[in-house]
Amino acid sequence: MVKTLKDIGFGLNATKNVKRFITEDGRFNINHVNKKSMFESTYSYLIRISWISFFSYVLLAYIIINSIFAIGYVAIGVDDISIYKSPNVFANFLNAFLFSAQTITTVGYGVMSPSGTLAGILAALEALIGLLSFSFTTGLLYGRFSKPKTLISFSKNFVVRPFKNKRALMIKVMNTSRNVLIKPKADVILILHKEVNGYFEPEYYNLKLERRSITFLPTTWTIVHEIDEESPFFKLTENNIAQAKAEIVVLFSYYDDAFNNEIYDVKSYLYSDLIIDKKFTKSYGYGEEGAIVLDHSMLDDVEKL
Amino acid sequence: MVKTLKDIGFGLNATKNVKRFITEDGRFNINHVNKKSMFESTYSYLIRISWISFFSYVLLAYIIINSIFAIGYVAIGVDDISIYKSPNVFANFLNAFLFSAQTITTVGYGVMSPSGTLAGILAALEALIGLLSFSFTTGLLYGRFSKPKTLISFSKNFVVRPFKNKRALMIKVMNTSRNVLIKPKADVILILHKEVNGYFEPEYYNLKLERRSITFLPTTWTIVHEIDEESPFFKLTENNIAQAKAEIVVLFSYYDDAFNNEIYDVKSYLYSDLIIDKKFTKSYGYGEEGAIVLDHSMLDDVEKL
Amino acid sequence: MVKTLKDIGFGLNATKNVKRFITEDGRFNINHVNKKSMFESTYSYLIRISWISFFSYVLLAYIIINSIFAIGYVAIGVDDISIYKSPNVFANFLNAFLFSAQTITTVGYGVMSPSGTLAGILAALEALIGLLSFSFTTGLLYGRFSKPKTLISFSKNFVVRPFKNKRALMIKVMNTSRNVLIKPKADVILILHKEVNGYFEPEYYNLKLERRSITFLPTTWTIVHEIDEESPFFKLTENNIAQAKAEIVVLFSYYDDAFNNEIYDVKSYLYSDLIIDKKFTKSYGYGEEGAIVLDHSMLDDVEKL
Amino acid sequence: MVKTLKDIGFGLNATKNVKRFITEDGRFNINHVNKKSMFESTYSYLIRISWISFFSYVLLAYIIINSIFAIGYVAIGVDDISIYKSPNVFANFLNAFLFSAQTITTVGYGVMSPSGTLAGILAALEALIGLLSFSFTTGLLYGRFSKPKTLISFSKNFVVRPFKNKRALMIKVMNTSRNVLIKPKADVILILHKEVNGYFEPEYYNLKLERRSITFLPTTWTIVHEIDEESPFFKLTENNIAQAKAEIVVLFSYYDDAFNNEIYDVKSYLYSDLIIDKKFTKSYGYGEEGAIVLDHSMLDDVEKL
Repeated sequence: MVKTLKDIGFGLNATKNVKRFITEDGRFNINHVNKKSMFESTYSYLIRISWISFFSYVLLAYIIINSIFAIGYVAIGVDDISIYKSPNVFANFLNAFLFSAQTITTVGYGVMSPSGTLAGILAALEALIGLLSFSFTTGLLYGRFSKPKTLISFSKNFVVRPFKNKRALMIKVMNTSRNVLIKPKADVILILHKEVNGYFEPEYYNLKLERRSITFLPTTWTIVHEIDEESPFFKLTENNIAQAKAEIVVLFSYYDDAFNNEIYDVKSYLYSDLIIDKKFTKSYGYGEEGAIVLDHSMLDDVEKL
Repeated sequence: MVKTLKDIGFGLNATKNVKRFITEDGRFNINHVNKKSMFESTYSYLIRISWISFFSYVLLAYIIINSIFAIGYVAIGVDDISIYKSPNVFANFLNAFLFSAQTITTVGYGVMSPSGTLAGILAALEALIGLLSFSFTTGLLYGRFSKPKTLISFSKNFVVRPFKNKRALMIKVMNTSRNVLIKPKADVILILHKEVNGYFEPEYYNLKLERRSITFLPTTWTIVHEIDEESPFFKLTENNIAQAKAEIVVLFSYYDDAFNNEIYDVKSYLYSDLIIDKKFTKSYGYGEEGAIVLDHSMLDDVEKL
Repeated sequence: MVKTLKDIGFGLNATKNVKRFITEDGRFNINHVNKKSMFESTYSYLIRISWISFFSYVLLAYIIINSIFAIGYVAIGVDDISIYKSPNVFANFLNAFLFSAQTITTVGYGVMSPSGTLAGILAALEALIGLLSFSFTTGLLYGRFSKPKTLISFSKNFVVRPFKNKRALMIKVMNTSRNVLIKPKADVILILHKEVNGYFEPEYYNLKLERRSITFLPTTWTIVHEIDEESPFFKLTENNIAQAKAEIVVLFSYYDDAFNNEIYDVKSYLYSDLIIDKKFTKSYGYGEEGAIVLDHSMLDDVEKL
Repeated sequence: MVKTLKDIGFGLNATKNVKRFITEDGRFNINHVNKKSMFESTYSYLIRISWISFFSYVLLAYIIINSIFAIGYVAIGVDDISIYKSPNVFANFLNAFLFSAQTITTVGYGVMSPSGTLAGILAALEALIGLLSFSFTTGLLYGRFSKPKTLISFSKNFVVRPFKNKRALMIKVMNTSRNVLIKPKADVILILHKEVNGYFEPEYYNLKLERRSITFLPTTWTIVHEIDEESPFFKLTENNIAQAKAEIVVLFSYYDDAFNNEIYDVKSYLYSDLIIDKKFTKSYGYGEEGAIVLDHSMLDDVEKL
């Protein structure tokens, strides 16, 4: 068995171009090789893609399946499904395609209908496949709906600035909805890619937070890690951090009152996302009407200390 | 970039008319501005609305979609779908509308049916859209059903009265069903809107409860916060409370044996919901038949001490 | 407002015929009066009933809805949907009923089809209602399926017998499936109905268990409560227990590996379910084939000490 | 009542051929006798089987149900549904079968359609059954989809080797996806089948782990149990282990960020899966592109110390 890991450069000093550990869509940036393909990954792919891609796939599948059945009906003989038989092959295919569409959607107008046994059996099979496909699509649509959506936005950047006689690292999160998000909790992890015996290895450090959890999250919350003697940042220079391709990962969870579910969300920051000696601008206040106003466009704003 | 927060009065001394923090339907009373619209909010809107609104939207969508397709069929030519072509435009539209309805629901009687290629393709597309729409509706209907419903009712008012040589704040909750609600837990939070450096800011205080959790909830439970030296109420006068627009928020959770899910429920009380020196009337007892009787109409009843 | 609680005997000395607190189907035996009716209770009713009842309701609804629409078509005029108009009213109704069934199921053969505008609109509405009803039914069916089923059976009786120089109360539970039930936990609560100032009130005592939780449950587990000095049973005579209408409630939970969900189950025992000085018969052993054999019929068996 | 347990050899010295406790598909290897059949087990069976088996059952059910209805239509009289009546019985059955398929799928072309009352009623019933069956299938399909899939693979073997001046037992797990699996936890249990008073009984030992939980699982994790004085392996010889038919069970859980659910997974190792004095080969590294590469084919690889 060929060990493909070696073929693709495993063990090379590859830290010069180390890629981020967690991608912007919150998944591990890991290259899987020799993976057994799984049907389930098709499902979770169809759950994950955008609505436009999803409906494009549905339309494409509809055209392909109808074309296949149309070829079948043409092979059996167009006069078995329609009284209009054309000398033109494409016109016959088109008629068979429309008959197929009427069958798979179970419209069945009946102007075209199978008269021979073979066409009848093919149509009976197609109607079954049609209903199963739409059952399938219903399952996918509900799967897409019921997938709990995160209602949290993270600030684009993280900040390091003076705080209570020390320095602190800060990340800001916003509740983008009016849902009561209960008991939000944060874990912040520093990932460094370090050389160990000539090999590179990711190392994880849990950053101690000023507060790991709050009661609920109406507007925004600034997560604070004080850089004290115990912090892994204490002994690192900026240069060290850049060299070790530092990455900061936030694991955020809360109970969503509307979905009645515990939701997790993941966000990753690179060294290039760091802003030094600024502070996050407050992005909410009391409006004239008396209710608190939260400005989504101000989530990423920073200002002078 | 225009900071709309400033435009709408951010920073004004708006506490005179501060609105409640959590609305009566248990959502944050926060005005979101510059929010990116999300498809998901449409879904959660359709899950949240009443059944009457839901079915009105479905009917409306049915009429609109059929009208659009009807216009399409009329444009192609009514004689492509029906042998009855009328000189009256509205009659033709109506016929096309009925044909569209027969296609989108996949009834397809066949008395009207597409004869030309263009009408055939439009009908094939419509039948697909019809099935997708009903898949969609199935997903929405199940989403509405499966959304765990809270089975808890809170008393309309909260009470402050003498209790064990001190004063105590009391809130009453009722299990409105026969489901065994397991390990109900309560968190009670006091919210004050306080002036800090000329700005107003909500402040949260967790109120210590006599019991945070009970084994199960057959009938009613009175949640008790003793106003001792540690209570934020200890040093507040009634006037203070009114000025700071005090609001009391209950986060209530339990495990629902029938839904097999942990359910959260949120309730908010304003200062105007306070009743002083009364006690909640017991709202259950043993009936003549031997079973416990729980009277829903007595949930809010109070009586003299 | 009439306080119905008083009308039905609240406050009477009703302990002579006190009914069980938790019914055999695991719900509180509480009589709800003045309850606001809820649509959701219809849903959870349709989820809870047996499959035979469920399909009977579906068939009944099908007949009723078709009859209503049939009356509508007859009122509009049977010649609008069929070329066969009979002088017999019932024959016309039957034809209209069959047309209605063909429309609501979207079969739409087309031999009968709406020719007038009014019949056309009614049929378009019926087809919509048909599809919505079947969406509804799909939701209900999936709701019935996906409701996590408990895989636990409790012994019919509980046992009190000598155990390690004391006496102990024992309850036996069985995993009725091959699913790996992980971390089963038990809470056992004693309920006594006691007189307090002339009123009767349920009182709850948590019984301390020898083990509250085990790693997993392959076959059976005997839950043991030792009757030591701290046990509420220690000072009770058998007569006391009978008088106070003692009831023992088991709250049982486990993680179901197949449903991937935490499941709760509730069981209640009355004084009449007590067996004294016997022990539960072991209901599993190694079969000749080498695998463990679990005999469901032996769950309730007891034998001499 | 016959105690079947005794009939099948309960109490025999059956340890010579003791079968594994947990099967390779992660279920208890327990032989249930005298079990009451349950509808729910049909559902969970249809959820568990492969897609090929599932679609074969659907196709089979489609053929059987249509055949039954076809026999009904033939019994009523083929001339009630078709103008083509053949003297050939099989041709009539085939026509009735195709009509039935057109009805149950609600295609309803209309060339064949029920003309008599009895055939009309049977067709109305069949269309209802058709829609219910497809609702049912939709529920099953969604149940199959939404069943959280485990994304974990376990190493085929476990290893015992020197580790930090002691010996340690090691098991390797791999995240087979790019999903962020949060807070993976492991419990490792040793099962021995021991003789107690002439009977054999499974005994469980929780093995103490070096780390029970990690923050997240990007690639692989080696679970380590040090064989110190407290370990049940400390005093066991290899011979003992083989005799007692030792089995090692891993209960693994994690929070799946994509399914938003806590997932459990179970794996069982036999004595024959043991590899001594080798170590697991590292199966990931940094590729030339800079991202970490994980090689699925190397999960089970071991190498010299």
